[in-house]
Amino acid sequence: MTYRAPMAEQMFVLETTGEIDRLAELPGFEHVDAGIAAAVLDETRKLAEDELYAVSRIGDQQGSTWTDGEVRLPDGFAVAYAKWIEGGWNGIEAPEAWGGQNLPLTLSAIIQEQMFAANVALSQIMSLTAGAVRAIAAHGSEELKATYLPNMVSGEWSGTMNLTEPGAGSDVGALRTIAQVTDDGSYRIRGAKIYITFGEHDATKNIVHLVLARIVGASEGTRGISLFLVPKFLPDADGRPGKRNDVRCTGIEHKLGMRGSATASLSYGDDDECVGYLVGEPQGGIRAMFTMMNHARIGVGIQGVGIADVAYQKAARYAQERVQSAPLEGERTPVRIIDHPDVRRNLMTMRALVEGARALAVYNSLQIDRGHAATGDEARAASARAELLTPCTKALCTDISLEVSSLAIQVFGGIGFIEETGIAQHYRDARILPIYEGTNGIQALDLVRRKLRLENGETWRALLDEIDTDAAGWRTVPALAAGAAVLVEASATLRAITNRLLDLGITDAASGATPYLRMFSLVTCGWLMGRQAAAAVDRLAAADGDPDFLSAKIATAAFFQQQVLTEVFALQHRVAAGAEPLFAIPDSQFPA
Amino acid sequence: MTYRAPMAEQMFVLETTGEIDRLAELPGFEHVDAGIAAAVLDETRKLAEDELYAVSRIGDQQGSTWTDGEVRLPDGFAVAYAKWIEGGWNGIEAPEAWGGQNLPLTLSAIIQEQMFAANVALSQIMSLTAGAVRAIAAHGSEELKATYLPNMVSGEWSGTMNLTEPGAGSDVGALRTIAQVTDDGSYRIRGAKIYITFGEHDATKNIVHLVLARIVGASEGTRGISLFLVPKFLPDADGRPGKRNDVRCTGIEHKLGMRGSATASLSYGDDDECVGYLVGEPQGGIRAMFTMMNHARIGVGIQGVGIADVAYQKAARYAQERVQSAPLEGERTPVRIIDHPDVRRNLMTMRALVEGARALAVYNSLQIDRGHAATGDEARAASARAELLTPCTKALCTDISLEVSSLAIQVFGGIGFIEETGIAQHYRDARILPIYEGTNGIQALDLVRRKLRLENGETWRALLDEIDTDAAGWRTVPALAAGAAVLVEASATLRAITNRLLDLGITDAASGATPYLRMFSLVTCGWLMGRQAAAAVDRLAAADGDPDFLSAKIATAAFFQQQVLTEVFALQHRVAAGAEPLFAIPDSQFPA
Repeated sequence: MTYRAPMAEQMFVLETTGEIDRLAELPGFEHVDAGIAAAVLDETRKLAEDELYAVSRIGDQQGSTWTDGEVRLPDGFAVAYAKWIEGGWNGIEAPEAWGGQNLPLTLSAIIQEQMFAANVALSQIMSLTAGAVRAIAAHGSEELKATYLPNMVSGEWSGTMNLTEPGAGSDVGALRTIAQVTDDGSYRIRGAKIYITFGEHDATKNIVHLVLARIVGASEGTRGISLFLVPKFLPDADGRPGKRNDVRCTGIEHKLGMRGSATASLSYGDDDECVGYLVGEPQGGIRAMFTMMNHARIGVGIQGVGIADVAYQKAARYAQERVQSAPLEGERTPVRIIDHPDVRRNLMTMRALVEGARALAVYNSLQIDRGHAATGDEARAASARAELLTPCTKALCTDISLEVSSLAIQVFGGIGFIEETGIAQHYRDARILPIYEGTNGIQALDLVRRKLRLENGETWRALLDEIDTDAAGWRTVPALAAGAAVLVEASATLRAITNRLLDLGITDAASGATPYLRMFSLVTCGWLMGRQAAAAVDRLAAADGDPDFLSAKIATAAFFQQQVLTEVFALQHRVAAGAEPLFAIPDSQFPA
Repeated sequence: MTYRAPMAEQMFVLETTGEIDRLAELPGFEHVDAGIAAAVLDETRKLAEDELYAVSRIGDQQGSTWTDGEVRLPDGFAVAYAKWIEGGWNGIEAPEAWGGQNLPLTLSAIIQEQMFAANVALSQIMSLTAGAVRAIAAHGSEELKATYLPNMVSGEWSGTMNLTEPGAGSDVGALRTIAQVTDDGSYRIRGAKIYITFGEHDATKNIVHLVLARIVGASEGTRGISLFLVPKFLPDADGRPGKRNDVRCTGIEHKLGMRGSATASLSYGDDDECVGYLVGEPQGGIRAMFTMMNHARIGVGIQGVGIADVAYQKAARYAQERVQSAPLEGERTPVRIIDHPDVRRNLMTMRALVEGARALAVYNSLQIDRGHAATGDEARAASARAELLTPCTKALCTDISLEVSSLAIQVFGGIGFIEETGIAQHYRDARILPIYEGTNGIQALDLVRRKLRLENGETWRALLDEIDTDAAGWRTVPALAAGAAVLVEASATLRAITNRLLDLGITDAASGATPYLRMFSLVTCGWLMGRQAAAAVDRLAAADGDPDFLSAKIATAAFFQQQVLTEVFALQHRVAAGAEPLFAIPDSQFPA
């Protein structure tokens, strides 16, 4: 089995949903157009398919191993990583000032999808480093930037994100790691962190930890938290890794999936000599961390798209190879199982979910790019829309990765349950995605409690208005009309339920948050798929592009709208019910 | 973490849905009433909780191991199995003539749920043996019965079911194993079987394989298949295991889950000396195997209930222990996460799905018991209803085991992804359930193509009529009215879509089969939950039973009807669409 980046689809999405050519008109992105994007993607595709994917299975089988504080990555991980950074691809989004390529997130989203599809466990190291670069570039002192960013952008050094502690997961404000200022302005860090992805490994010469901690005397809760940069090796006078800092890896986890990556427990300051440097303002840690985290949330959504796509590909290939008689029919005419209606339904569902999720992740990334590069109202509206959609991208794309990787096993049948087949790995890998970087439940609360209130609600209303306008237009186009009719109804349902939700008290609203996020995300995906279908109709009329691909896009969009999006008609009942049905049973009636 | 059989719930379900006291009035079941059932369940509960559960984790960690044709089960499996059969529990459903207890399937369903919840991998051996006993008792010669059944009913010998071959899974008719009759009337078997659960192991003195094969010269396809009994050791003159038969275990699988069980590849007749005995008529193999398989399908559904229940229990306990501040609120008041609305929604969803699935499995079992023990129209109607519901029980209960075990990981959060926590095992174990004993896609086809046509459609119409009558009555009972209103609408939706489906051509009907089965199952579960709630209302009024338990039952039924059952309003769109959306894209547009 293999991974092949779906280049035709990826370029189509970049050109339509990603508006790559319009993006190139914005300051800072003049160096990117569809032609450049295609050339870039053809390079990253090769590395992903040939180098990253080649070590994905062995990474799962061997796992990372810990011995006396040192972590050894699976065979081939360090080499595959080296090839990736040699190509200069580690700094795709990073500023050119620090050696990066300053490519738009919109393009980076597709590059990341290729990496994650090929080898999500290994590729976490690149995305964590990119997130750390972003936080340091935004909040770090000039000295920190000069010392660390060139090495991190090149990939010579990697980055980590340290939030979780044994007693503080979703509840970040409960953390107990402390920081004591010293005479030279640096800090001494002391505490224990867990679940630190690539918190220790042997693929780079240095590791740069970004650590949330509380300065001694600072306030309780999230407000008192600051962000610190803690290198594994303190840079010497020449900026090269020098003295070992007082941070130790005390173990790594044995996990359901993502076994190739090292999920480390880190102990800071056992000898009270752990040197850290403040990033940003004292007690400004949460804000600085969110710079990294919003970015990471979209990245995790893209992990979902990547895992879902590779699982879908493998299932589709297997379904075309596997020959079987029609079951229960007594017919002896062998058919490929792709022609069994039930298998076909699974494949179409997977295809629609993958394409819808990809569209959402790319569109969300585009709004971030426009928010940064455009000006005035355009920038403000784009940034707000990006914020609105970030929890949707994180949750929807990761939820569908569970659904798609599970359906993939179902398509394989019994052999899918055998580990050697290689499809079960995606089902295992995917299971962490709805949990890390803020559980999907937290994403739903973020949407309902904060994002719906952006610009006094103007942000979500503007989006739904745009959806309604587009959908109304599509109803007159024969190829789009049936799907558009569902979209119109789904959008109206969503609008009504949103207004109702906003009138609910805090607990009632929170009680419907998860099904609400799903509704909001499906409607948005249904719209984006409609826009892609509309673009395909135009291209077909202009004889611009592969007609088979364009027709398939129209059919997939229709499937999404008519078969997937219809889920909103069930979800509305869950949103509307409020807290009463959830709390009708006292705690004492649950198993104890 | 632990497993505790939910005795109050299990007894309530037996008494209401299982009608255990009415069942005792039927010939053959006079020895069973609610009191006996409670006493039995208290014994099996202890064995499940104390012996079977105790080796579940180690079974997963060690797995079974294969060396030179011999299979060693994980530490403790053989001892736990021995304790189970010592209690006399191996023959719970078997005829008393062969040493069994002849307990109704209705009660056995709950016993099985306890076994599967405690240790599904190990308990497969008991359920496979029970299925083999059933097939031999129904179709075997008196000599075969006398030789094999007492040893199998006691559990001294175990049984297997051999259908699958490398080129013949769902497509049973493609099998290539052959049987050549010999002068003494026995057969020589030659062929290779795969995925044979407990096809080889070290926990019993003999293994009795039931093997599908084609007698030389028989017709192609499923019609030409016969069933053979092939013992690992040929019984000697005293009926004890004698000469080794010519069947070898060539390997076992490395699986995503169910790692404690041995999934064997078996090679029959390498030396052309494999002795097999015909069970039933020549070319009657499929019919004989279906005796075993229908039973096994309900058993697999119960595996789903068991896995879902233990996962739900663990998540509910964790949610009551785990203390956290309210996320995103900045509040510092610690609450148990069971009080977070999103966690509560997950727990209520799990609870409703488990209770609904349990009700369906028990009700399906009751219909089989009534079909056997009652007479005349009552028996005929019960048997037909049992047949109608069997694909629903198999598919619904296994599908929800994926949903519930996935939600359980979500409730645990990051620690749920760590294998040592022990919750991920259920997610891995469950993944085979929708595949084996006929994939859930095949169950859906069975429902749509065969079961809906039973008695010219009278079977499904009688069920929906009964649902409508009950639901109409509940609309006047305040505690039941809101849920009943949804049930009325859901049932009407199902009836309309069923009539439409029956008018569709074969491919169009097959295209909607999977969502249709889900609709049918959810409506049936919604009704059964309603009946339980109605019984709880009566008991509350009569001050008969624990009012907290009864109130919780009413609330869970309402949750099922108002929050889970509403899924049918989305599913109807998938059923109604037919084949067109599935085949709108040519094969060539799928990844190759």
